[in-house]
Amino acid sequence: MDLVSLRRDIHAHPEPAFCELRTAALVLSQLRMLPVRLRTGAEAIRLEGIPAYPDEPTLREFAELAVANGADHTDIQTLAAQGTAVIADMEGTRPGPVWALRFDMDALPVAEAEDGGHFPATSGFGSAYPGFMHACGHDGHVAIGLALAERLADRDFPGTVRFLFQPAEEGGRGARAMLAAGAVDGVDRFVAVHLGLDLPAAKVAAGITGIFATTKMRARFTGVAAHAAAAPQDGRNALLAAATAVLGIHSLPRFSTADTRVNVGTLHAGGGVNIVPALAELTCEARSRDGAVNADLTERVKRVLRGAAEAQGVEVEIEETGGSTSLNCDDALLDAVLAAAGSRGHEAVRLHEMGGSDDASLFAEAVQRAGGLATYTVVGGSNPAPHHNPRFDVDEAALPVAVDVLEALIRESTVD
Amino acid sequence: MDLVSLRRDIHAHPEPAFCELRTAALVLSQLRMLPVRLRTGAEAIRLEGIPAYPDEPTLREFAELAVANGADHTDIQTLAAQGTAVIADMEGTRPGPVWALRFDMDALPVAEAEDGGHFPATSGFGSAYPGFMHACGHDGHVAIGLALAERLADRDFPGTVRFLFQPAEEGGRGARAMLAAGAVDGVDRFVAVHLGLDLPAAKVAAGITGIFATTKMRARFTGVAAHAAAAPQDGRNALLAAATAVLGIHSLPRFSTADTRVNVGTLHAGGGVNIVPALAELTCEARSRDGAVNADLTERVKRVLRGAAEAQGVEVEIEETGGSTSLNCDDALLDAVLAAAGSRGHEAVRLHEMGGSDDASLFAEAVQRAGGLATYTVVGGSNPAPHHNPRFDVDEAALPVAVDVLEALIRESTVD
Amino acid sequence: MDLVSLRRDIHAHPEPAFCELRTAALVLSQLRMLPVRLRTGAEAIRLEGIPAYPDEPTLREFAELAVANGADHTDIQTLAAQGTAVIADMEGTRPGPVWALRFDMDALPVAEAEDGGHFPATSGFGSAYPGFMHACGHDGHVAIGLALAERLADRDFPGTVRFLFQPAEEGGRGARAMLAAGAVDGVDRFVAVHLGLDLPAAKVAAGITGIFATTKMRARFTGVAAHAAAAPQDGRNALLAAATAVLGIHSLPRFSTADTRVNVGTLHAGGGVNIVPALAELTCEARSRDGAVNADLTERVKRVLRGAAEAQGVEVEIEETGGSTSLNCDDALLDAVLAAAGSRGHEAVRLHEMGGSDDASLFAEAVQRAGGLATYTVVGGSNPAPHHNPRFDVDEAALPVAVDVLEALIRESTVD
Amino acid sequence: MDLVSLRRDIHAHPEPAFCELRTAALVLSQLRMLPVRLRTGAEAIRLEGIPAYPDEPTLREFAELAVANGADHTDIQTLAAQGTAVIADMEGTRPGPVWALRFDMDALPVAEAEDGGHFPATSGFGSAYPGFMHACGHDGHVAIGLALAERLADRDFPGTVRFLFQPAEEGGRGARAMLAAGAVDGVDRFVAVHLGLDLPAAKVAAGITGIFATTKMRARFTGVAAHAAAAPQDGRNALLAAATAVLGIHSLPRFSTADTRVNVGTLHAGGGVNIVPALAELTCEARSRDGAVNADLTERVKRVLRGAAEAQGVEVEIEETGGSTSLNCDDALLDAVLAAAGSRGHEAVRLHEMGGSDDASLFAEAVQRAGGLATYTVVGGSNPAPHHNPRFDVDEAALPVAVDVLEALIRESTVD
Repeated sequence: MDLVSLRRDIHAHPEPAFCELRTAALVLSQLRMLPVRLRTGAEAIRLEGIPAYPDEPTLREFAELAVANGADHTDIQTLAAQGTAVIADMEGTRPGPVWALRFDMDALPVAEAEDGGHFPATSGFGSAYPGFMHACGHDGHVAIGLALAERLADRDFPGTVRFLFQPAEEGGRGARAMLAAGAVDGVDRFVAVHLGLDLPAAKVAAGITGIFATTKMRARFTGVAAHAAAAPQDGRNALLAAATAVLGIHSLPRFSTADTRVNVGTLHAGGGVNIVPALAELTCEARSRDGAVNADLTERVKRVLRGAAEAQGVEVEIEETGGSTSLNCDDALLDAVLAAAGSRGHEAVRLHEMGGSDDASLFAEAVQRAGGLATYTVVGGSNPAPHHNPRFDVDEAALPVAVDVLEALIRESTVD
Repeated sequence: MDLVSLRRDIHAHPEPAFCELRTAALVLSQLRMLPVRLRTGAEAIRLEGIPAYPDEPTLREFAELAVANGADHTDIQTLAAQGTAVIADMEGTRPGPVWALRFDMDALPVAEAEDGGHFPATSGFGSAYPGFMHACGHDGHVAIGLALAERLADRDFPGTVRFLFQPAEEGGRGARAMLAAGAVDGVDRFVAVHLGLDLPAAKVAAGITGIFATTKMRARFTGVAAHAAAAPQDGRNALLAAATAVLGIHSLPRFSTADTRVNVGTLHAGGGVNIVPALAELTCEARSRDGAVNADLTERVKRVLRGAAEAQGVEVEIEETGGSTSLNCDDALLDAVLAAAGSRGHEAVRLHEMGGSDDASLFAEAVQRAGGLATYTVVGGSNPAPHHNPRFDVDEAALPVAVDVLEALIRESTVD
Repeated sequence: MDLVSLRRDIHAHPEPAFCELRTAALVLSQLRMLPVRLRTGAEAIRLEGIPAYPDEPTLREFAELAVANGADHTDIQTLAAQGTAVIADMEGTRPGPVWALRFDMDALPVAEAEDGGHFPATSGFGSAYPGFMHACGHDGHVAIGLALAERLADRDFPGTVRFLFQPAEEGGRGARAMLAAGAVDGVDRFVAVHLGLDLPAAKVAAGITGIFATTKMRARFTGVAAHAAAAPQDGRNALLAAATAVLGIHSLPRFSTADTRVNVGTLHAGGGVNIVPALAELTCEARSRDGAVNADLTERVKRVLRGAAEAQGVEVEIEETGGSTSLNCDDALLDAVLAAAGSRGHEAVRLHEMGGSDDASLFAEAVQRAGGLATYTVVGGSNPAPHHNPRFDVDEAALPVAVDVLEALIRESTVD
Repeated sequence: MDLVSLRRDIHAHPEPAFCELRTAALVLSQLRMLPVRLRTGAEAIRLEGIPAYPDEPTLREFAELAVANGADHTDIQTLAAQGTAVIADMEGTRPGPVWALRFDMDALPVAEAEDGGHFPATSGFGSAYPGFMHACGHDGHVAIGLALAERLADRDFPGTVRFLFQPAEEGGRGARAMLAAGAVDGVDRFVAVHLGLDLPAAKVAAGITGIFATTKMRARFTGVAAHAAAAPQDGRNALLAAATAVLGIHSLPRFSTADTRVNVGTLHAGGGVNIVPALAELTCEARSRDGAVNADLTERVKRVLRGAAEAQGVEVEIEETGGSTSLNCDDALLDAVLAAAGSRGHEAVRLHEMGGSDDASLFAEAVQRAGGLATYTVVGGSNPAPHHNPRFDVDEAALPVAVDVLEALIRESTVD
């Protein structure tokens, strides 16, 4: 499939974190035709200890959808059982460094726009999975990775290229689990690539600044149910605790020392209208462009959660479900990306300020700690709406630019 | 089936409001053997305009469960399409008044206790439907109704007995929809029967006082989603509005003029941890033992909901999804129930204070407005836990008492 | 002075809890002309350990006002130093029981209405102390006590009458402090009298039901101040904690077992608009018609306060500043009051439901515990507005009724 | 008096916004000995329309304190009646530009530390006015202004120097009111000077970046009082509305487009513990380093206030009580300050990032709009604690540096 067809096919079948079954099966089917060594299952990802991993019914539902939408039944069974991460090593014909390139695969729980103003809708490749959407461009990322692998299949480059097809970037859980399986062991150069991020069309940024360190949390409040009219005093109201925490978390102070963010993303509580709610579960996140401030803010979020529980006499269990660090791109690699972009005639800037988080930072940190280099490269585009919005879409013109720059980087880079 | 077997079979298959498919099919299968005229579908209930009626997938899920658990496939299809209310008229051999007896069928979204201390669990008839439970005794009510119909099948009584098997008592929506179908047209005497309600075992209360008028509401807050890090200011946070409303509703003043209750029973909001929540939906209720105070309190709840939305710049849509009135039992009918209980040797009190609501009050009100009489009779029992609690269970010894008293009332009553 | 002049003079000079200097000086000056034994200072009240006792500047301010408004300078000095309670024992000429009659003296921090529709304003005896008002009828109570003392000065009655002029009924601190000084030691019969309370004009209620047990609390949150722009993260926000507590306290559940009330009456927090507030102080109360429920509710209020502090990382100090119990009036004394009212031709009912609290209940409880009898008698009136409202006023026609009934009770009662 | 004695004398007598009576009288007494033209009263400040201007008793209290602490009685009377702003024009002997130098005079409602670790306490010049403190260095600013005026009294400089002694910088009300009196009419160069601001000791910053635009607001909630036990439902709770607003304001989103701040600085509500609070008043502020974002945030604060009032059925009146803009320092003036510092041997940087707001920005904006130049110069110091903290103190070594640099700027600057 060509680049645009690939991305549209993926766009139409958006799968949330760790449920990227059809996507991973597509990746596998494409890569099997190429000269790579494939790793899946425990060689690519450790499932033990992943917080909030999808339950059996959810995985089964997406497995059925995947098969119904053309995926190979056996692949889907295996991926559902062993995890959706795929690693592919392609060896060049000449000695050289080991590169790792990260492509994330997961979609978001956002209901895609369906009206005439939204290009995927009018062009017939809008989300076929109600309530889910590729609203962050990962459809494009996967397509770029697959097209690049095909482009480099002549193996006419120095060193080795490792393609990391990663689940669960949103929520910050996938990279950590792949690291536990040794995903970047022996890697000298790490590059993540991301489309959009408010960089103008036809522009490349060799690296980024300002990425947020983040902690994702889940809090489960457990109280006591009671008949809301006959004995309200016998209840312990988990929803009141959670609602108090929502306000408390959003009320945490801004920091003068670094940019911060807080969000309570979901809250589910209660059973019946006439029952004092005994259960409430929320997910929330802290962020800061400074890792230490993020750690401080995370502690404050937890204190708010505990105080709210204490006030209502309910229990609260707090779990860190994901997270990522900040990231400093290495100068030598920034130079190399700028050179690669230049060699193909693409306009490039050295650094672009990023407004979010990405657990690619954990891969980068691991590679840097082992003495390697890392960067996070952005390829701009004219996006019709912000990331995570029901009207977001990638700029398809950016896809070949990304493939081009990465190809040049691998083939021509002399960084060492 | 005998009385206890019936109630245990129903207990094991708890179905929530308007999903009482297996229960209604069981009612139909039992009543078809008796000399009654059966009404279902539009003759028994008007589905148009019922707020928060279950959606197709939910009905389909309970339909599949019902068939898998022994119900007749054709009956289930019909009931799922036309509603679960069943009305049966049994004519006596002598002239006399038209009685209507109400038996409610729905279960609650409560996860039943499964440990050794809970009788249904240890006796093998605990809920087979995870997350749902007969925690208010309606399993017993249906069994009483069916046993009574069998007992009266000799038709040796004056007048006519109309059995009303009602869906959706919890949440206060079923009676209103059956009234719209003329369920109590032409009725002279209305009796609802309820087990438990903190009345001691082996006691009968001819009527009740203190029943709460209530209004059930659903509020849907609609804001704007945004990336929680990249552009939080572009979001309009529906969850913040809902959390503010939760606290505001519970903070409404107590009234010195009448007992009141408020509860926010459920809240569901948001999509992903890193997205400003654009949607939040809650269900809540107001109650008072005085109807005018309930109306006042309902308006205050709505004002809190609107103010919370205004503060966050989000929209809120408020719907009254159910409700019921207070109820004054008629003296003549109280006398008749006392006499009936006495004639069978059961200890009886005239009035018992009730701590909840029941939309049987709407049937009662309609009958009284048309010149008839109404009461709400309670049969006590030793319940191991409060109503709506995961450890609630009916006292099976109360079941024959209830059948007995109602039989005596129908056969022997001289009230006119 | 006559009864009406007395009450108007007192009405015009309303003094809050423990600052009743001019009022107590007036009481002293009137009683000194009568055959009584007077007790003040440590013989009438123990000041040690009274929570939230007025500070020096406040006492000095009201002392200056008292002198400026005609009070004796020496009396005021003494009362300001030793407390405002006054006890007067008047011995009858015949043997008989020891009666104690309670008259409370304090006013409220309510700004009195000043327009044409308010009788005290148009008649020239509105509050001369801005921000304070006799909005609960204690002006009338003191006048009744003084008039009764004058009426009984012939000593033509059996036994002894002890007049208790009590400070600080509002907030529930005065009775406790007088009890500590032995105010009702040796008392056989205790009667408190209160005007109004929604009893119709020209009616007397021999006793009351439904009085609320109550606990008054003060919570002081201590955080850390910081520049709100330069370093908000260095602050610990006491106001956020207090605001969270306000919502949490009002959100506490209604009880099905007994009527309850909660209120946060005052909140004062912060210093400057651009400083993170380091201090916040609130006063609040719990109430219930059942003493055990009040104790439970009080614990819940404290838990909310502590949880709110924990959530914000601030300290909270909670003090019980006052309180009172519920009260059961004794049948024999109810009979006696009914007889007394009847003997003077006043219409009387046995019991009246009361909607508030009064620490006279502590005197009553002490007398009852020692084997005596107690009641709380109400004299109705046509009040233009509810108690504690800026437009409240006592019905002056009720004053002589109260004196009359109490006189008859003392002179004629045969209860023993 | 020498520089240090002046600042200590002022430090010991801290006066809040618009109450700087003793300070202004001291300024007047010093300047009267110098060759200046003095302007006070309506020539220096317009009192009409100043929001939240101190009331009569407050002004009288500080007037009495001023006289008791050595100020001239007549001056104090005049300043209390006409405002505390003082403008002094000193003409140089040569033609040249008109300079305006701003020195702010007000203290903060912060209780100063009194223990051994706090230099003003141990050196005997701690605050003599309990609850108030020079915690932002304005004591030093006034001293610098007076010392500079004395230094320049030889008039050996080109142009004219206008000294602006400004009240009420904190809260952002003084500059606006002086502008209304024409304080910077005809000015060519405007310089504000501030000590500290986290700039290291012995350093000068010619200008600043990052100053916050800000809006100060006061919200007054008016509900209905009621007896908290007898008729809580008749109340409309102003404190509940205010507490909801406190949480709502602090919960407003962070902006990705510019740094923001929010603060609710004070809240005062209620009358008595047993009365539903009918009044609640809070002060709050919005800030952003971007003026348009500050305007957006201000509107959101108001929406939260209105929504909270709506929810409780109370009225809210919102007043903007102060504010200031952001500020861009002019390059030519930055050059001149750098040159002046260099000529006296002081280390200087061009720009320093500021973490707060200052309504000197309004003077600067007015001068720039009229074609002049402006800057905001900082003189660093080793401050023992942050600004607005009870342990803050200025570095006295910074005082002569400030005088020195300003003197050089006036005498030697060639900017035009």
